[in-house]
Amino acid sequence: MKFNIALLAGDGIGPEVIEQAVKVSDAVAKKFGHEITWKPALTGAAAIDAVGEPYPDATHEICLASDAVLFGAIGHPKYDNDPSAPVRPEQGLLKMRKKLGLFANVRPTFTFPSLLEKSPLKRERIEGTDLVFLRELTGGIYFGEKGRRDGGETAFDNCVYTREEVQRLAKKGFELAMTRGKKLCCVDKANVLETSRLWRETVQAMEKDYPEVTVSYEFVDAVAMRLVQWPNSYDVLITENLFGDILTDEASVISGSMGLMPSASVGTDNQLFEPIHGSYPQATGKNIANPMATVLSAAMMFEMAFGLQEEGAVIRDAVNKALAEGIVTEDLADGGKAYGTKEVGDWLAANI
Amino acid sequence: MKFNIALLAGDGIGPEVIEQAVKVSDAVAKKFGHEITWKPALTGAAAIDAVGEPYPDATHEICLASDAVLFGAIGHPKYDNDPSAPVRPEQGLLKMRKKLGLFANVRPTFTFPSLLEKSPLKRERIEGTDLVFLRELTGGIYFGEKGRRDGGETAFDNCVYTREEVQRLAKKGFELAMTRGKKLCCVDKANVLETSRLWRETVQAMEKDYPEVTVSYEFVDAVAMRLVQWPNSYDVLITENLFGDILTDEASVISGSMGLMPSASVGTDNQLFEPIHGSYPQATGKNIANPMATVLSAAMMFEMAFGLQEEGAVIRDAVNKALAEGIVTEDLADGGKAYGTKEVGDWLAANI
Ligand SMILES: CC(C)[C@H](C(=O)O)[C@@H](O)C(=O)O
Ligand SMILES: CC(C)[C@H](C(=O)O)[C@@H](O)C(=O)O
Repeated sequence: MKFNIALLAGDGIGPEVIEQAVKVSDAVAKKFGHEITWKPALTGAAAIDAVGEPYPDATHEICLASDAVLFGAIGHPKYDNDPSAPVRPEQGLLKMRKKLGLFANVRPTFTFPSLLEKSPLKRERIEGTDLVFLRELTGGIYFGEKGRRDGGETAFDNCVYTREEVQRLAKKGFELAMTRGKKLCCVDKANVLETSRLWRETVQAMEKDYPEVTVSYEFVDAVAMRLVQWPNSYDVLITENLFGDILTDEASVISGSMGLMPSASVGTDNQLFEPIHGSYPQATGKNIANPMATVLSAAMMFEMAFGLQEEGAVIRDAVNKALAEGIVTEDLADGGKAYGTKEVGDWLAANI
Repeated sequence: MKFNIALLAGDGIGPEVIEQAVKVSDAVAKKFGHEITWKPALTGAAAIDAVGEPYPDATHEICLASDAVLFGAIGHPKYDNDPSAPVRPEQGLLKMRKKLGLFANVRPTFTFPSLLEKSPLKRERIEGTDLVFLRELTGGIYFGEKGRRDGGETAFDNCVYTREEVQRLAKKGFELAMTRGKKLCCVDKANVLETSRLWRETVQAMEKDYPEVTVSYEFVDAVAMRLVQWPNSYDVLITENLFGDILTDEASVISGSMGLMPSASVGTDNQLFEPIHGSYPQATGKNIANPMATVLSAAMMFEMAFGLQEEGAVIRDAVNKALAEGIVTEDLADGGKAYGTKEVGDWLAANI
């Protein structure tokens, strides 16, 4: 098969970790006889510096013309202490999600046996954790009307959802649950919010189409607790944009494998894959960043965007083998030998 | 001194745990020569059953006329699966907060050395945790305009904050920080929300009035992570209503002492004290509920509402002693002898 993949390396450690994912993907393509054409494009602070815009039209065109987007990380410290700066890298992220219609953010949280000790949680609490959040990504309070009144003294943000937006996200949730543990948890705040009541009634109405899926409804505050208490009690969770932002980050840290977690953001026509970690500016250019989350994002890309399960599995196997043999960057070295970002990438590519 | 205290026992285990707090408070009053007049009033499902309203006007009058309100818990399973039922216990809660002007919810999270093992987190992560959330409680998306459009197909919830609402909450945060570790963390989502930008700029402008307080600004998703990673790195955290709902529940569970955590909701004229746990319907009437969170809420009442530190300390000492000597309910008994709700209350009262 032939693929065009848009390559959005972004800021900080983005370019370094993306380079390893490219290396590994190329090795996979070679092994299975595929042909990948990489289409690099600017995004984030790098794009602001170059063309004054965090998600330039030229980048959008490249994404639209591609079969998938592989994304590194964006964000730069020079914007950190000024959240109201007129142009910010994050705006590019939101614009990209909206313009590519990436309405579902797929965030798995699973454990690597060798990393269980890294978790702040006790082993017995997290063993066997394997959950996936589907976070709605192009609606809700992120994209509703926002602004000031009364000469700036009053601020507002509107949270809006349509039934259709809930349905298309929930549909993905039900379908995903069918391929896994057949459990779906709808996370909302239906005891307070009207948008949450729309979520709940919409999901309730869809239950009959998936009789095999056991659906539960939990309030967001209760889930924030139970994620810490019994993360391994969950299978698939669906939720709205802001709740998803908070809970997926909380979930990622409990597994002890945060630096290894990949993610996908998918819509009807486009699909993007990225590590959940940020641009980690302190590590930039030092060849110390862990490339595994980005490499695993490439695995998700083969599986979800191209339907190539075996190719994905080969990448996952290589990562597991590297972890088992200690071919890891300093964040996982635990006093043992630490390999460089590039060296881990080389090793993974050689072991495909 | 003489006090009138409104007594809102509420639903489920509410009446049982409140009874113990009354017993202990009376013992304290006797010891220190105070006179307490308790004014029982209906609230929650109990009030709906009796008068069709979860926060009746008669109850409001009693609260207004009192020096403090001691609250049990509300919520009943018969309302649980129907978040859009026309009358629900939670509506009483929101109405009560609003009508009494309880704009600041004070939620401490601390550890009891003897309970560290109960935490899902590893000991070294939580040891020394002693933080307080100040959650804004009468504004934000809880109280903004909400409803449906397009024949019910679109739902909306408006989040609104005024500078004044932020200021009065932040002021309490700065003042509290001055009495503690002098660290204040403002939790927001200023990279996305206009209300959060108002929060941040308002708090920034107040920094100069409290030069001794070290202020940090963190995004809500980052705090959801760091609370699990390093809860003991926080001192005082201030945040808006919905973020506070989620994060205070998350924080409560990490300490391992959730069943013991008290809280206060305060405004300009009124103050309410309640355990953070719910109405725990399964335990109702079984004399097994842990009364300590409610008893510690009474301690907060003596300290915060009446300025009686010594009285509060005597209650805390009694609770610590009970924990040390194993005079605990079954949730803390760990295979040892479990005492009844009433017996723990009697023991605490006798040890004042
Ligand atoms: C950077 C920020 C706008 C973004 C979000 O809130 O969606 C990030 O936290 C994420 O989760 O991808
Ligand atoms: C019951 C519910 C409305 C309430 C809230 O969200 O404020 C509860 O979760 C709380 O935190 O007191």
